[in-house]
Amino acid sequence: MAKEKKLVEAITSMEEDFAQWYTDVVKKAELIDYSSVKGCMILKPAGYAIWENIQHELDRRFKETGVENVYMPLFIPESLLNKEKDHVEGFAPEVAWVTHGGLNPLQERLCVRPTSETLFCDFYKNIIQSYRDLPKVYNQWCSVVRWEKETRPFLRSREFLWQEGHTAHATEEEAEARTVQMLNLYADFCEEVLAMPVVRGQKTEKEKFAGAEATYTIEALMHDGKALQSGTSHNFGDGFAKAFGIQYTDKDNKLQYVHQTSWGMTTRLIGAVIMVHGDDSGLVLPPRIAPTQVMVIPIQQHKEGVLEKAEELKTRLAASGIRVKSDNSEKSPGFKFSEQEMRGIPIRIEIGPKDIQAGQCVLVRRDTREKTVVALEDLEAKTTELLETIQSEMFARAKAHRDAHIYDAHNYTEFTEIVNTKPGFIRGMWCGDQACEDKIKEDFAATSRCMPFNDQEQIATTCVCCGKPAHKLVYWGKAY
Amino acid sequence: MAKEKKLVEAITSMEEDFAQWYTDVVKKAELIDYSSVKGCMILKPAGYAIWENIQHELDRRFKETGVENVYMPLFIPESLLNKEKDHVEGFAPEVAWVTHGGLNPLQERLCVRPTSETLFCDFYKNIIQSYRDLPKVYNQWCSVVRWEKETRPFLRSREFLWQEGHTAHATEEEAEARTVQMLNLYADFCEEVLAMPVVRGQKTEKEKFAGAEATYTIEALMHDGKALQSGTSHNFGDGFAKAFGIQYTDKDNKLQYVHQTSWGMTTRLIGAVIMVHGDDSGLVLPPRIAPTQVMVIPIQQHKEGVLEKAEELKTRLAASGIRVKSDNSEKSPGFKFSEQEMRGIPIRIEIGPKDIQAGQCVLVRRDTREKTVVALEDLEAKTTELLETIQSEMFARAKAHRDAHIYDAHNYTEFTEIVNTKPGFIRGMWCGDQACEDKIKEDFAATSRCMPFNDQEQIATTCVCCGKPAHKLVYWGKAY
Repeated sequence: MAKEKKLVEAITSMEEDFAQWYTDVVKKAELIDYSSVKGCMILKPAGYAIWENIQHELDRRFKETGVENVYMPLFIPESLLNKEKDHVEGFAPEVAWVTHGGLNPLQERLCVRPTSETLFCDFYKNIIQSYRDLPKVYNQWCSVVRWEKETRPFLRSREFLWQEGHTAHATEEEAEARTVQMLNLYADFCEEVLAMPVVRGQKTEKEKFAGAEATYTIEALMHDGKALQSGTSHNFGDGFAKAFGIQYTDKDNKLQYVHQTSWGMTTRLIGAVIMVHGDDSGLVLPPRIAPTQVMVIPIQQHKEGVLEKAEELKTRLAASGIRVKSDNSEKSPGFKFSEQEMRGIPIRIEIGPKDIQAGQCVLVRRDTREKTVVALEDLEAKTTELLETIQSEMFARAKAHRDAHIYDAHNYTEFTEIVNTKPGFIRGMWCGDQACEDKIKEDFAATSRCMPFNDQEQIATTCVCCGKPAHKLVYWGKAY
Repeated sequence: MAKEKKLVEAITSMEEDFAQWYTDVVKKAELIDYSSVKGCMILKPAGYAIWENIQHELDRRFKETGVENVYMPLFIPESLLNKEKDHVEGFAPEVAWVTHGGLNPLQERLCVRPTSETLFCDFYKNIIQSYRDLPKVYNQWCSVVRWEKETRPFLRSREFLWQEGHTAHATEEEAEARTVQMLNLYADFCEEVLAMPVVRGQKTEKEKFAGAEATYTIEALMHDGKALQSGTSHNFGDGFAKAFGIQYTDKDNKLQYVHQTSWGMTTRLIGAVIMVHGDDSGLVLPPRIAPTQVMVIPIQQHKEGVLEKAEELKTRLAASGIRVKSDNSEKSPGFKFSEQEMRGIPIRIEIGPKDIQAGQCVLVRRDTREKTVVALEDLEAKTTELLETIQSEMFARAKAHRDAHIYDAHNYTEFTEIVNTKPGFIRGMWCGDQACEDKIKEDFAATSRCMPFNDQEQIATTCVCCGKPAHKLVYWGKAY
């Protein structure tokens, strides 16, 4: 009992200290561990399994759109990184440098990839000659390294796992279409699989990716009202192509530069899932991404037939394609409940002697704690149905929460009041001048999250910051 | 036609120059490309897709035995690498060192992981306290870096993809059982999926892994008679546990050291598949690992209905779970055949106006070039059956070739004659003295590949090298 108490006690409540709650969940749900390499985390089985599910589903969706996977080297020669001016300025201050191979110093320093635009450009330069070689729609799954000063599990770490897609196209239009297509794929994935609503939009010049002509983003709102950039898709135009000399011969035998894009999602999505859905009992996983969807917990398991029945239910559910485990350990049912809740397993099934006698079991939802008594003959159908219900209701709840935390500001007085008292997105007009972004950042540590695609409306005629004429609606917010 | 000719001409024949043939296949089948990072290769879509299939099937088999996936940091602090004496001696000369993070020198150098024993030990030390925490059976899929001087695509490169399993157990027996289990899993995988026969055995002291008590290996024979180490499984005993202080409290409340294992397979398997099955027309892929199993090639595709019929066949095969593509490009059928052969696609289906009229199509095997006329209504059944036949006959052929290249040597005269004239494995008794291994390596650049588990027999009473009494049968050979 001492240990059981400890498990529950050890979680700080969200209201009390959201940051500490997050750290507690990440540790107690056994998603990560700290390593002896400062700023690098260990993804434990429960954490890595979520990533495997994300990876599996994203990869499937990528391939449906014609993406092919490749693997590029981990290292980038310094001279290659330096080829595109904006890009190197963006990344050079935060890369790790390899200077020795074996016992000898290297002739040229190599950086550990922070992102692989330069490697893909160097590759494309060699393999693209004719319009027949286009488009190239390649992606890789790998880890990248950015020497961040402050780190937090999943959200910002010196090494993280991600996918990076890099494409080359014959025309500007095709590159733009691919940039938008991947952003929409990301948004649909977040909404359909992670049950996490996102705002789709464009980054301002100030916030765009180093070397991009345009960066599109999806922005999610965490439970504490802070924004999290959850995926980005960049249109490079022909900037990298010119820096690297990536040209092809078109149908009229003329040399043309290719147009390029890149797009990526990372393990930070796991942090997003925690902060959108979690509660004071721990993690709450959407069924589609949960490594274990159902935990069968026997009650009074020493009574005759209980363990056998629990195993039977597990076997039946597994046979109908549900990811299910049973907990037959010597711990008390209460402790097992706490563990299942901490780990965010969407449904637990309780089955004891009385249930067996009555030909039923009890399904308990992780998200709402609602209990349903289910006749054993309906087990598969009811469980499948409940998983779908949980998935859609989790999305609806997250969306309602998000929508309730979007505020309109028409001038700086309103903006100031909202940003200081109401965590969430602030919709406000912007004149287009970076000085206003700088001022808002300095005054409130808030940033322009995006210029939304879908709900661009003229909520005022003047900039929320400087009062000059403004035509662009921007989502502002404090962000991770 | 000029380009078509080039494709075929460009391959060196195996007999003429095996090494050049290998390089030609690797490039012409578009498996890899060289990168601007010396010694690091780019895995192109056709190469990476083979790795994805290997990964998928191995991972499935791992999980069936209770393996859980994790992800450990890319970097190892120098002090951590130095903790186990034999291990650091084995790896320190060939690691890449990170000395700077961003603009600042690091306080302690980090090496890019050449393998992750030390990281797992550091992790296990923190998470293992009681016998209840055991066993830990973790694995990771990642890339590792070894600063090799000479490199060859897939076989030896400075960065390569692999999986590394690392386990911790309460007892010596359990660790030994896991070591053997994983070696057998590897061997079964190679034989059942890659259609590649292997010899299972133990490495000698000289050839074992740095820090291991025992290394088990599977050794395959390439078409040129050279051996390729294709997977290894190590039993560390409690050596690492003592160096890192990994202890648990047993049921009697006594402190005990854990017993550990590790095991790995790499992208070198792709090199093995090329060199076991390939021929002078290029790659020959076993169906179970082929990214594309069937290529449908329309004949006289401009005639009415041909392209439509080809698409229909493709759709039907895809619906029955076969990985199929069609080539509707403007190239000539002959060129398409050459491409399909170069890429090692197990079956091509030819369909033209006459076939359509006769209600049939032609299945051509890549491995034997045998043609079968198949009635269109039998398409799915016959194709599935043929894929199975190809798979099993490829294994049988590779095994017959391997078995025909195993020679017995009873003394050094015989050994000398065989090693100089007959490429293959040489079975010969060994006294157990490393001096004999050294002499054989110096005289012939041949090494002890393994002491086989399954066909240990006393083919002589004396060492094949020094003539002293000998009880161990060893497979010797030149190796990649």
